[in-house]
Amino acid sequence: MNLRGVGVSPGIGHGPSFILDVFVPEPPEGATYTGEADQEKERAMVALTQVAGELEARGNQAGGEAEEILKAQALMAEDPGVVVKVRSLIDRGLAAPRAVFEAFTKYRDVLAGSGGYLGERAADLDDIRDRVIALLNGQTLPGVQGAPDEPYVLIARDLAPADTALLTKASVAAFVTEEGGPTSHTAILARAMGVPAVVACPGATGIPPGVRVMADGTSGEVRVEPAESDVAEAVGAATARRTALSAVRGPGRTADGHPVPLLANVGGPAELAAAVDAGAEGVGLYRTEFLFLDRIEPPSAEEQRSAYRAALEAFPGGDVVVRTLDGGADKPLAFLPVPAEPNPALGERGLRQFRRFPEVMEAQLGALAAVAAQGLRVMAPMVATAEEAVWFAQACRAKGLPSAGVMIEIPSAALRAAHLLEPVDFISIGTNDLAQYAFAADRQVSAVGVLNDPWQPALLDLVAMTAEAASSAGKPCGVCGESAADPALACVFTGLGVSTLSMGAAALAAVRAALAAHTLEQCRRAAEAARAQVTAARARVAARAYLPGLGRLGL
Amino acid sequence: MNLRGVGVSPGIGHGPSFILDVFVPEPPEGATYTGEADQEKERAMVALTQVAGELEARGNQAGGEAEEILKAQALMAEDPGVVVKVRSLIDRGLAAPRAVFEAFTKYRDVLAGSGGYLGERAADLDDIRDRVIALLNGQTLPGVQGAPDEPYVLIARDLAPADTALLTKASVAAFVTEEGGPTSHTAILARAMGVPAVVACPGATGIPPGVRVMADGTSGEVRVEPAESDVAEAVGAATARRTALSAVRGPGRTADGHPVPLLANVGGPAELAAAVDAGAEGVGLYRTEFLFLDRIEPPSAEEQRSAYRAALEAFPGGDVVVRTLDGGADKPLAFLPVPAEPNPALGERGLRQFRRFPEVMEAQLGALAAVAAQGLRVMAPMVATAEEAVWFAQACRAKGLPSAGVMIEIPSAALRAAHLLEPVDFISIGTNDLAQYAFAADRQVSAVGVLNDPWQPALLDLVAMTAEAASSAGKPCGVCGESAADPALACVFTGLGVSTLSMGAAALAAVRAALAAHTLEQCRRAAEAARAQVTAARARVAARAYLPGLGRLGL
Repeated sequence: MNLRGVGVSPGIGHGPSFILDVFVPEPPEGATYTGEADQEKERAMVALTQVAGELEARGNQAGGEAEEILKAQALMAEDPGVVVKVRSLIDRGLAAPRAVFEAFTKYRDVLAGSGGYLGERAADLDDIRDRVIALLNGQTLPGVQGAPDEPYVLIARDLAPADTALLTKASVAAFVTEEGGPTSHTAILARAMGVPAVVACPGATGIPPGVRVMADGTSGEVRVEPAESDVAEAVGAATARRTALSAVRGPGRTADGHPVPLLANVGGPAELAAAVDAGAEGVGLYRTEFLFLDRIEPPSAEEQRSAYRAALEAFPGGDVVVRTLDGGADKPLAFLPVPAEPNPALGERGLRQFRRFPEVMEAQLGALAAVAAQGLRVMAPMVATAEEAVWFAQACRAKGLPSAGVMIEIPSAALRAAHLLEPVDFISIGTNDLAQYAFAADRQVSAVGVLNDPWQPALLDLVAMTAEAASSAGKPCGVCGESAADPALACVFTGLGVSTLSMGAAALAAVRAALAAHTLEQCRRAAEAARAQVTAARARVAARAYLPGLGRLGL
Repeated sequence: MNLRGVGVSPGIGHGPSFILDVFVPEPPEGATYTGEADQEKERAMVALTQVAGELEARGNQAGGEAEEILKAQALMAEDPGVVVKVRSLIDRGLAAPRAVFEAFTKYRDVLAGSGGYLGERAADLDDIRDRVIALLNGQTLPGVQGAPDEPYVLIARDLAPADTALLTKASVAAFVTEEGGPTSHTAILARAMGVPAVVACPGATGIPPGVRVMADGTSGEVRVEPAESDVAEAVGAATARRTALSAVRGPGRTADGHPVPLLANVGGPAELAAAVDAGAEGVGLYRTEFLFLDRIEPPSAEEQRSAYRAALEAFPGGDVVVRTLDGGADKPLAFLPVPAEPNPALGERGLRQFRRFPEVMEAQLGALAAVAAQGLRVMAPMVATAEEAVWFAQACRAKGLPSAGVMIEIPSAALRAAHLLEPVDFISIGTNDLAQYAFAADRQVSAVGVLNDPWQPALLDLVAMTAEAASSAGKPCGVCGESAADPALACVFTGLGVSTLSMGAAALAAVRAALAAHTLEQCRRAAEAARAQVTAARARVAARAYLPGLGRLGL
């Protein structure tokens, strides 16, 4: 049996299947209890407390981001509103499992219906509810207890943070889920762990438990009981591919020597070493949110300076592009409260927050100026108009910063790139947000995911307009969206006139090899061919026809 | 004393000021009661029920949209969660007013924090809370009791639906509020009533009660105790302007005879008569949401046919452009549940809902086909790609509909207008949403409102690209956003090559006069001049320099 999903974390993973069955049946409607109401209430309270405690303990053990997520979930298990509701339902005669079911379902429906940040927490509530009901019914709690000792292929409908927080590369060979997308929790976690993963794979939970499974995190193929020789071949091919790619070294350039500096997207000082190891020529996007998230007070000047200095010291010869705080939207900041917004992605986020809190911008630009070195470049996110670019550039100049730029991630900024370029020294295209707005399609919503395909010809149009404006102005234009990690798109962007490419460190080798395999003229023809198409799928095929080296490299 | 705000409903209103003071002080923290807990709870329950009853009664009296809004508010006053919370707070010793305050504040904070549709209901909760607390404290309920007998100028910080639902043009001369914007409830209601209104007017509630006030709903000027002669002059000028405008009759055309059919945006059969009276040449946007909102079941085929027939019969000679259901986002539909979305405006709305619920599209297109007459045109909202346009056009052809089109309200659709035009017969630009997405700026959020200015040069670029593509394809391209109601922009759109303009009926006379006062060449020059600018403010000034007739008409 072969299944197919979407490969979201590359590599070949193989091992016995382990199906994580989180199905906890709904307690029968109207189920009652025998005995005293107070005893039944006590039983429910003990179960809620125990689940909260387990989630918290698991968080302590996991540390990092998983800790925050699990501790928030633990709080939800003891939410006073839920507790009151459970008690009152038991008073009305419902058995504890049913009371828990109804109380959580009501709460989750309110959250789910409200959209926004809270709406996304609905799945977390389901997970708590199932754990409490399982405990009350004496079922084994959903989890990976009883998984094989050798590295296994973890298969599930979807994975909750509590399921995956404690897993390591040593125990899991691959993840396969029926739901989720390239930006789901599973995909993000798998890439961070370096474990191959396939998501959106229908039928996966129908795979029998314990059989050998091979998952290809590049092609999305999932094979059940493959022949030993097939596994050996796939692993061999993957290894050969990695070797071939890593054989290409040195700075990014096309086969005919046109330089395309390859930079890394870096989320904090901890990721700098990996970027250096992967041969990044600098940092194309240094996110600074890590300094500000989950804090009541903004970071101190010294804390900021130290984080910026770390990046400059990691790349003494190269450019380091620091993006100023991009808060709001899906990254709410405790100390920069944004009013309730019906659509946070269209609200006060990025540079717009600095209009309301100019002192935060002043402090950040001041800390950057204090460590300013030759290669430091500073850019603002979410710039829509030339007026905003002027405002930000002036603030940078006032601090004496050597180079100021803006991100092009809003359609109006791409359309008017020539005007935005005037006050600044460089621009950088953020293709993820640019696609989200150009197609009015939320990056977080899988139902509109097809519109966020970076091969959509209209998105290529916006990149082309922007690169042409930069070229006319004689100023650099980078791409720092995830799309630059696609080797074929990296060639197309080069053909459109983009001057630098920035991506996660893991993608650098493949992109470096793809560029080295093609001339600038081939890249240009591929770009032209892609833009001449009407659909994303055809654009991809049309471009690859001009990029024969990709197939040779297994890309 | 003169104040200045934003004029959102034109005309001169004058009369004695009446300040609607809805300030209900917060009951003191820790306030307790004497007597029995059960009595205190009963007191609170009676007040909640009474306020709910009053809101519902007021809704019954008002009818229409206000009725729906008020009935929803009445339900919130008796929300079981709030009732439980109030009772438990009283059990803990809090006095009823304080218990009500805390219960509602908790609930409103959850809603406000959650964003989305529920988030916008937070203000409604505040209104309920204040009414209940006032009742418990023996205060007079906030409202317009005691207003002058003659038409008065109603001044408030902001207005709740309950405040305004029962007001009429006979009792209110003008609205002036400190908060709100051009799309606030107050603005929408004032325009629907034909009452002049000024919003976002700082200091308005500082005007003493009972003094004469004159509000200019065009310029946004608010004058306190104006001289009689000034009032007479302003009223005279407004009357003269109306007379001059309404002197221009007949179909829309420029001074040199270039035809620009002027059509009406219509929200339901009840608005058809006003459109006919205002001389609309047809309907450029027949919204069909009114058939679907606030219903558990979709409307029957006969109900749909009758609504579509009404529009065709109102304009027997003209075009009637029916937009298929535009649900989702800020118009959630009870019978078409959309999953919780972090940003509903970027989610499954408009045509995207039909992918999930094709039977609703089939039924709507079937009902339209059953009444199809010569002038019937059917278009889909929220089309992003040529693939979606092909899908919709095929569905229309399969039903035998004579003319299928798509709205251009997503940047990608404007960029690729040539491709979207291929499968359809016409296109229509929705400038409100197009601006929202092009600038990534929520139409509902005043903090980013400046980006939604339809004079932004990047928006004019998108309109120009779209109109040029339509002209090359030899197919009609309308504009049906609110921006077409701006007489200067109407001329600019004409200059950009837009072939029809559709707007609220009230704006038709001014736009007709503005077009008749300028040649097509003047419109083209105005458009060119506007696009050559870097900011919206400069674009507006630059265009008007080529449109001298506007000043002469007082526009």
